[in-house]
Amino acid sequence: MKAYPECVPCVVRQGLNAAERLNLPKEKLFEVVREGVRFMARFETYDRSPAYYAYHVQQIVKRITGERDPFRELKKLANRKAEEILSSLNLDEILNSGERLRNALKLSAVGNLLDFAILPVEEAFKKLFEFLKKDFAVDDYGTFKRELASSGRILILGDNAGEIVFDKVLVRELKALGKEVVYAVKGGPILNDATLEDAKEVSMTSLCKVIDNGNDRVGTVLKYASEEFLKEWRAADLILSKGQANFESLSEYDEKPIYFLLTAKCKPVAEEVGARKPGDLVFKRNPAPPRA
Amino acid sequence: MKAYPECVPCVVRQGLNAAERLNLPKEKLFEVVREGVRFMARFETYDRSPAYYAYHVQQIVKRITGERDPFRELKKLANRKAEEILSSLNLDEILNSGERLRNALKLSAVGNLLDFAILPVEEAFKKLFEFLKKDFAVDDYGTFKRELASSGRILILGDNAGEIVFDKVLVRELKALGKEVVYAVKGGPILNDATLEDAKEVSMTSLCKVIDNGNDRVGTVLKYASEEFLKEWRAADLILSKGQANFESLSEYDEKPIYFLLTAKCKPVAEEVGARKPGDLVFKRNPAPPRA
Repeated sequence: MKAYPECVPCVVRQGLNAAERLNLPKEKLFEVVREGVRFMARFETYDRSPAYYAYHVQQIVKRITGERDPFRELKKLANRKAEEILSSLNLDEILNSGERLRNALKLSAVGNLLDFAILPVEEAFKKLFEFLKKDFAVDDYGTFKRELASSGRILILGDNAGEIVFDKVLVRELKALGKEVVYAVKGGPILNDATLEDAKEVSMTSLCKVIDNGNDRVGTVLKYASEEFLKEWRAADLILSKGQANFESLSEYDEKPIYFLLTAKCKPVAEEVGARKPGDLVFKRNPAPPRA
Repeated sequence: MKAYPECVPCVVRQGLNAAERLNLPKEKLFEVVREGVRFMARFETYDRSPAYYAYHVQQIVKRITGERDPFRELKKLANRKAEEILSSLNLDEILNSGERLRNALKLSAVGNLLDFAILPVEEAFKKLFEFLKKDFAVDDYGTFKRELASSGRILILGDNAGEIVFDKVLVRELKALGKEVVYAVKGGPILNDATLEDAKEVSMTSLCKVIDNGNDRVGTVLKYASEEFLKEWRAADLILSKGQANFESLSEYDEKPIYFLLTAKCKPVAEEVGARKPGDLVFKRNPAPPRA
């Protein structure tokens, strides 16, 4: 998708959010927003994806703050709290109230919504149940099930730390259906996205093959992906893409079926996916031609 | 007060908010944010008040959109809806549950919080009662009462349309205490701030002397004020200043007592006034030496 006007101030604010993690003097934070607006001021038009601008502003943050992983602590905290929540859930009850796979997808989408690092565990727990009650506002599950039936190999594009914990439930369900699952994480720290370190920390690595994509871009940008990632991309029958940034960077890709699983977090993405409002759960297929 | 780092993206977003009122093509909105970041990119440091940057971004909006009053319709709507709410309140019950003047001040601060133009009337009504239950998080009412006792002439610096309707209750209470009250509005359209047109529309003009400040700056900037405004400023024993922008532009003024009556709407202002969080009701005196 292309950026919306509101993305322009938003990516600058997002740069500040990252820098605010680091206990820096106010002058450093001013430098971050100044260089942020200076970067955004260079464009005549904004016809790239929001993820593109977000990435470059995050690079500015890394340069100015000297910290290549501003979300390090938050990611660890998110993983820990998400594990705590997952372990106290009655998972079978949640999965069996209806279709298991559908419920696992929904749990994974809700995992995309919750900011585990910020929310107190009890509050995240409450919100989780509140959101599990909602249905997908955009729902391509029917098509998904048909395409899944003829798909042997699934590539999941992960999104955030914390969230990755709930993706384990989805991986297990897919494996129980006899699917080969590969889970891809980022090749380097960017925002609060999961990396190999997180995948190991939450033992995703003992559940399925985990690869990194060889780069630290926001979202998934194929031209920067490693050969290992591209091999898995080509081998996959179906891609399950998590979160906004992967949607932003892949929404126009139409050579193979991608299912975008996310919670819309802002108006532009809600509009692009055809949801009604931020907060809506989304399970949306891309425009690639249907599989057999 | 001086700008905070978060003010930098925020004033750009605020420019977009104004332009979004006008049903323009997306290209115009992109132009607004592009010129907004370009304006903010020109500074080496941000040591003026947030209101200063906000004003210049709003001028950019006016230039690009060709509309000198983007909030015209919203202001009329806000006045109408606020009048509807006020007329359905049992005002005596609200004012008499405790000290009348204190309750009138609180009502006026709550009027500063509600976005009458956006909220459905029933919802605004509900929120009003919810917020009336809260107490001032910053409370200089004790000092105010002492200083008011020796003050004959009060100048109120108005803030938004809609809100001005609830200020009428405050004006009536001050007049009932024998005070001479002058109510100042903006000299030209800026954001959703009340102008003479609004003061007439809601009949503030038949309640007390209403003047405009001779300019369309965000907040109150004395060096741009008209002679008529400055005469009233000098004649007043005490200033009652409403809303964030007036606080932003006057917080350092210390030659006469100013009481800032507002709801903190963002973290920087909440921090500056010593409130705990956005949403807190604030009644705060400036650092001028005490009156007799």
